[in-house]
Amino acid sequence: MNFEFTPEVQALRQKLLQFMDEHIYPNEALWQEQVDQGDRWEPPAILEELKQKAKAQGLWNLFLHKSYGEFSPGLSNLEYAPLSEIMGRVYWASEVFNCNAPDTGNMEVLAKYGTPAQQDKWLKPLLNGEIRSAFAMTEPDLASSDATNVATSMVRDGDEYVINGRKWYISGACNNHCKIYIVMGKTSPDNPDKYRQQSMILVPANTPGVKVVRPVNVFSYDDAPEGHAEIIFDNVRVPVENMLLGEGRGFEIAQGRLGPGRIHHCMRTIGLAQRALEHMCERAETRIAFGRPLSKQQSVREDLAWSACEIEQARLLTLKAAQKMDIGGNKAAKDLIAMIKIVAPNMGCKVIDRAIQLFGAAGLSQDFFLARAYTLARAIRLADGPDQVHMMQLGRNLARDWMQQKNQ
Amino acid sequence: MNFEFTPEVQALRQKLLQFMDEHIYPNEALWQEQVDQGDRWEPPAILEELKQKAKAQGLWNLFLHKSYGEFSPGLSNLEYAPLSEIMGRVYWASEVFNCNAPDTGNMEVLAKYGTPAQQDKWLKPLLNGEIRSAFAMTEPDLASSDATNVATSMVRDGDEYVINGRKWYISGACNNHCKIYIVMGKTSPDNPDKYRQQSMILVPANTPGVKVVRPVNVFSYDDAPEGHAEIIFDNVRVPVENMLLGEGRGFEIAQGRLGPGRIHHCMRTIGLAQRALEHMCERAETRIAFGRPLSKQQSVREDLAWSACEIEQARLLTLKAAQKMDIGGNKAAKDLIAMIKIVAPNMGCKVIDRAIQLFGAAGLSQDFFLARAYTLARAIRLADGPDQVHMMQLGRNLARDWMQQKNQ
Amino acid sequence: MNFEFTPEVQALRQKLLQFMDEHIYPNEALWQEQVDQGDRWEPPAILEELKQKAKAQGLWNLFLHKSYGEFSPGLSNLEYAPLSEIMGRVYWASEVFNCNAPDTGNMEVLAKYGTPAQQDKWLKPLLNGEIRSAFAMTEPDLASSDATNVATSMVRDGDEYVINGRKWYISGACNNHCKIYIVMGKTSPDNPDKYRQQSMILVPANTPGVKVVRPVNVFSYDDAPEGHAEIIFDNVRVPVENMLLGEGRGFEIAQGRLGPGRIHHCMRTIGLAQRALEHMCERAETRIAFGRPLSKQQSVREDLAWSACEIEQARLLTLKAAQKMDIGGNKAAKDLIAMIKIVAPNMGCKVIDRAIQLFGAAGLSQDFFLARAYTLARAIRLADGPDQVHMMQLGRNLARDWMQQKNQ
Amino acid sequence: MNFEFTPEVQALRQKLLQFMDEHIYPNEALWQEQVDQGDRWEPPAILEELKQKAKAQGLWNLFLHKSYGEFSPGLSNLEYAPLSEIMGRVYWASEVFNCNAPDTGNMEVLAKYGTPAQQDKWLKPLLNGEIRSAFAMTEPDLASSDATNVATSMVRDGDEYVINGRKWYISGACNNHCKIYIVMGKTSPDNPDKYRQQSMILVPANTPGVKVVRPVNVFSYDDAPEGHAEIIFDNVRVPVENMLLGEGRGFEIAQGRLGPGRIHHCMRTIGLAQRALEHMCERAETRIAFGRPLSKQQSVREDLAWSACEIEQARLLTLKAAQKMDIGGNKAAKDLIAMIKIVAPNMGCKVIDRAIQLFGAAGLSQDFFLARAYTLARAIRLADGPDQVHMMQLGRNLARDWMQQKNQ
Repeated sequence: MNFEFTPEVQALRQKLLQFMDEHIYPNEALWQEQVDQGDRWEPPAILEELKQKAKAQGLWNLFLHKSYGEFSPGLSNLEYAPLSEIMGRVYWASEVFNCNAPDTGNMEVLAKYGTPAQQDKWLKPLLNGEIRSAFAMTEPDLASSDATNVATSMVRDGDEYVINGRKWYISGACNNHCKIYIVMGKTSPDNPDKYRQQSMILVPANTPGVKVVRPVNVFSYDDAPEGHAEIIFDNVRVPVENMLLGEGRGFEIAQGRLGPGRIHHCMRTIGLAQRALEHMCERAETRIAFGRPLSKQQSVREDLAWSACEIEQARLLTLKAAQKMDIGGNKAAKDLIAMIKIVAPNMGCKVIDRAIQLFGAAGLSQDFFLARAYTLARAIRLADGPDQVHMMQLGRNLARDWMQQKNQ
Repeated sequence: MNFEFTPEVQALRQKLLQFMDEHIYPNEALWQEQVDQGDRWEPPAILEELKQKAKAQGLWNLFLHKSYGEFSPGLSNLEYAPLSEIMGRVYWASEVFNCNAPDTGNMEVLAKYGTPAQQDKWLKPLLNGEIRSAFAMTEPDLASSDATNVATSMVRDGDEYVINGRKWYISGACNNHCKIYIVMGKTSPDNPDKYRQQSMILVPANTPGVKVVRPVNVFSYDDAPEGHAEIIFDNVRVPVENMLLGEGRGFEIAQGRLGPGRIHHCMRTIGLAQRALEHMCERAETRIAFGRPLSKQQSVREDLAWSACEIEQARLLTLKAAQKMDIGGNKAAKDLIAMIKIVAPNMGCKVIDRAIQLFGAAGLSQDFFLARAYTLARAIRLADGPDQVHMMQLGRNLARDWMQQKNQ
Repeated sequence: MNFEFTPEVQALRQKLLQFMDEHIYPNEALWQEQVDQGDRWEPPAILEELKQKAKAQGLWNLFLHKSYGEFSPGLSNLEYAPLSEIMGRVYWASEVFNCNAPDTGNMEVLAKYGTPAQQDKWLKPLLNGEIRSAFAMTEPDLASSDATNVATSMVRDGDEYVINGRKWYISGACNNHCKIYIVMGKTSPDNPDKYRQQSMILVPANTPGVKVVRPVNVFSYDDAPEGHAEIIFDNVRVPVENMLLGEGRGFEIAQGRLGPGRIHHCMRTIGLAQRALEHMCERAETRIAFGRPLSKQQSVREDLAWSACEIEQARLLTLKAAQKMDIGGNKAAKDLIAMIKIVAPNMGCKVIDRAIQLFGAAGLSQDFFLARAYTLARAIRLADGPDQVHMMQLGRNLARDWMQQKNQ
Repeated sequence: MNFEFTPEVQALRQKLLQFMDEHIYPNEALWQEQVDQGDRWEPPAILEELKQKAKAQGLWNLFLHKSYGEFSPGLSNLEYAPLSEIMGRVYWASEVFNCNAPDTGNMEVLAKYGTPAQQDKWLKPLLNGEIRSAFAMTEPDLASSDATNVATSMVRDGDEYVINGRKWYISGACNNHCKIYIVMGKTSPDNPDKYRQQSMILVPANTPGVKVVRPVNVFSYDDAPEGHAEIIFDNVRVPVENMLLGEGRGFEIAQGRLGPGRIHHCMRTIGLAQRALEHMCERAETRIAFGRPLSKQQSVREDLAWSACEIEQARLLTLKAAQKMDIGGNKAAKDLIAMIKIVAPNMGCKVIDRAIQLFGAAGLSQDFFLARAYTLARAIRLADGPDQVHMMQLGRNLARDWMQQKNQ
């Protein structure tokens, strides 16, 4: 057991921290300004500039696990995790390094399950950061927390599948550069095995019948230029070659996709919380109330102390989950992944909420990153299934596994 | 002791509930639509229509305590509180009944401390709902939780005061109809009694030197058409007759203003939470996951149960505070007012957050009132001083008073 | 609506407070000393002395609702509740006023459902404080939270019932003065209506076959001289006249018994919490750490403030439940009773735990009443069914009732 | 970074787990039985038997860090930590392995600061498990959380120190085998450096003037045969050679002593919590309520899930602190040690309380280990300084260090 990062990871962390200092933080206001002017769904110019800089420095696609061979820059989950945390400190920074969701998960799916043709057409431009992608699973009319609920239909008609359904909260799909969706639907609604009814298929964004209805908000943020789209699929036809892995294997792909995605989400959330804590420290040392700095107040110190405790614990747990995935794969790590999915977003909400409280009204305003950070952390408690679903599975496993072990 | 409302209050509640059912809920979408089109800072047409209807039914100015004589429709704080709760269920509904903050507090100040001339000019159009007003106290550069911190200067120059300073989060001041501000500043910064340094003065919105710089957001909501303005007072001159009550009495006015204001805020928040609970009940009974309604899940039942417990407790405490104010005045009720200021917004955040969780992604969206309601409740934890300030005072009083009582 | 006690109740409160000051607090150490010497299951001499004093002052049987006519001193639940709170401040004080559980509930059962013969034999000496009683429902081998689970068998054999089973946590049954048990068991295990299988029967403590096996502890307190007994009923025979109300009506009696019992438990817990808060206030004002009284620490003030908020809220809710019972009976008040059963013991645990923390190691010791008070409050979270059972029922009712109301 | 234990540690864990299975769990009832009979302050015979077995297997003194050379079996803090967790599962088991507090800390003090003569006389029999020791620091009359508060006086008189003062909660000092105390007092109350006023001195338990007044309880547990003693030092005279390290160095020794002690306490608490979780799992799978196992209830699953999350996080944080101490020493690890001191006992209380709730009344009884485990975890929130003191220091450090780093 060893809690120190390797020298290689330390070096990457330093490089990334420096990039953040030099290029990201100084451009936070500009990024927002560019988004707020002009077409909200067009990525701001500064983003493209920064992407080139990051690529030039080799800070690119670091998320992609070394097991993906040629596609990958060669890091493990455990090595990437602390880098993901740093990128997560600014909510749009991951994209600068081509490490943003949902593209990361989509690239993994294509790298793992895609045919060479699919990879040529979609994976390569994604790896190059030329296009964006979306993952269309959640539906408004059903509890998507139960993935077997998905209702979008996919009916084979000759050499094509015909897709009909309504999706929402499809992150990234409002972005003008989003060119491809991975869509989950039911090809075999009557299959007695309810985990074999679903398939995933590639749908180019410009396919006739695809209608982006509107952006759906998160606490009134439209999260431009990504956006969370509501999309209608109205007799959308795609060739059968667009099927991923094979009919009836959508659930399997979904399971495979979510592990690393959750670790990334959690590490980014930890980054947000860590940044919030640092802002709290600064505010506490510099803000005077009732004749002395806030940091002299015991209740403020307790908030700082708990926040540090909670952040560090969530960080260690997530790193452990990352290593478990590296060693044993998604399945061996499933309980740990459930644990971080429960822990990290809740921790993020708590820590950032304390920061808002310390900042007073300023914490709610657009002048600080806290209000937005809170909504991000809050949304992640629901993304990829609400807390309750993960607790349901984890609690069930814990009890069952303990009894099995005992009865051996 | 008796927990039943009087028949008169019950009748008013019924009338108001019916008004909500007939006129408010059916117009929620329209109200938002009208705000989102056209000038964001112009009240939507539907609002003016509804105001006329409410006025015609006598559901008008009910907040104004019967002690204000001719200005008042004759209710006590205890009688008004349950009506305020009902209005609070829709965040813009209070204005329909001319019961919206900060106008309510401003009308009380004018009714209590205003000269007849001030009342003619400003109170009457406010009571008629013809104009709106703002209360300019909070400043960005200082911890406003300590009201003695206020830095805006007010220097007498002949028959005028010259005002210089910067205020923010001045609610309502973006509204085109906002015509008058009550501004807090320092007229006697050197007074050794730090509670006598401040004054409050009336500043018409169109006075030269008043610059509304920008709207400040709450979690990205601009809360149009009210808005929370950042305002610069740059050598703003107003006649000495605009002084309220007298130089050096600003702190005293602030204290007098806050009691009923806090009760109204709390009751509105309880209304929001109650509505959230009702939405949770409906969702829990109608949404199916894993083969049965959510309401069959023990964890959902526990969320409903705790929410009901917390709402009812906060409600009773607020009603008790209202009665205490009616009987003994602001000062006698100060600990109870601090208690509800701590309890109700925290309760609101907790209950509404549970509702969001139950609704899943939908809870974050613009399709339901929950996300916005959450931000309202969260903001109220900071409005009128953050929780910590009220706990500081309440905790100090509790310990001191107990020892005094014991040592008698 | 009115939050003031009536003059009559105020007078009784004053009388009781004075009795506590003069007779109870000064004898706390002596009471414990007498229990710790000699036979632990014999009530201490001081208790009998104090009972005579209380009786002489008319502070006797105040719990018994005025609807019980001649047996009752004439108070309503709402009037008795604040008195119950005061008695609850010292965990053995209720008995001084013949207001202690489980005798209170047992007297109610006998007064409501007992035959004149049963009342002569058992109710009268109980009302006189000459004997004690127990209520034997909980069993160790089954989840008693589900009352239909009770397994003790009662088989009619001629003019007798033969009882077999094991009970535990039978409070008061270790006391030498405990002469009579109300025992719940199954007379009709095959009745298809599972709420009609149970009966309640009177079993004198000295009946052959009744074996008090051992005292069961609560966090190592044996709660002498009451004790919580484990009892075996081994072919215990009682005459059929001992049946209460009739075969198959045990569940009905249990339901009727629990409402006021819960209100008493809650009010006593509120009394404990209130006393803990007062001790905190005193400690905070008098204990010096790091150069100043603890009460100057913001975190201490926050603990005091929250505690006061939580206590007052729980108190108001319990009083409201009491009035609802007075007006509408057990059934009308069922949701409110569930609410206080959830709220009050949890509140008690939280407040007393904060007090322990403020007192440091002393808070854990036998020198202060806090450690014991904590275990009392903690046990009440489980007595009469754990929190979860009440939340299950309350949550179910809330959702169902809301939808019914909506669909009307 | 690596979250796997080394093969050597794994082997020790296996050996220890097997010892627990074979020798500790099967003797839990016997241990208690022997304590409850006869002299409560005499260690039970079974304990001495088990100590011989453990010693024979080399499971002995494992706590003593390898830096202590010949005295040590050679483990680091990081290597010992997981073993400490296992021992902690049964609250008296650590002593079987001679790894129980306060002896562990006392042996460290003697090994680090003791003269050869002191080591011969006291350290060797302690290392052999022949005698026990106590650490006398806490005083009833002062807030010991502020260690500079200690009031016991130590006045040099020729070749002796004369000690006067009152201590309490001196763990282990009731034990008949406790032969030596390390006592903290003030030798230089007027030293302007308040961290140089205190000294630590060795006081044999049988020195004239030492009076063990009484055992002080923890929630009514007397924790026999260890006990927590109140002790009066009444003109106790010890030779100057008994001074540790030198006059005025008591605070320094205290600081050096506490680091590993806190890690041990935390790991033991994690062991208690882990065992409580395993009991919850078993109960949840086997207990039927309302027609199905408790583990089918979503709220039960959520309790299991949160408990597992909290335990694993606390464990990782404690292991990280252990490694930090190994690498950088007490000082470098001070923030991490503060963090685990805050986190682990609070976590323990939460998890064990949930277990109690799941077990119902049984959880409060002497039939399960939960009630006692709760009181242990609760006491550890206060031992070595209450949470608040650690949060005060940690919060202060966090804010200060962040600003220093930023301003570099």
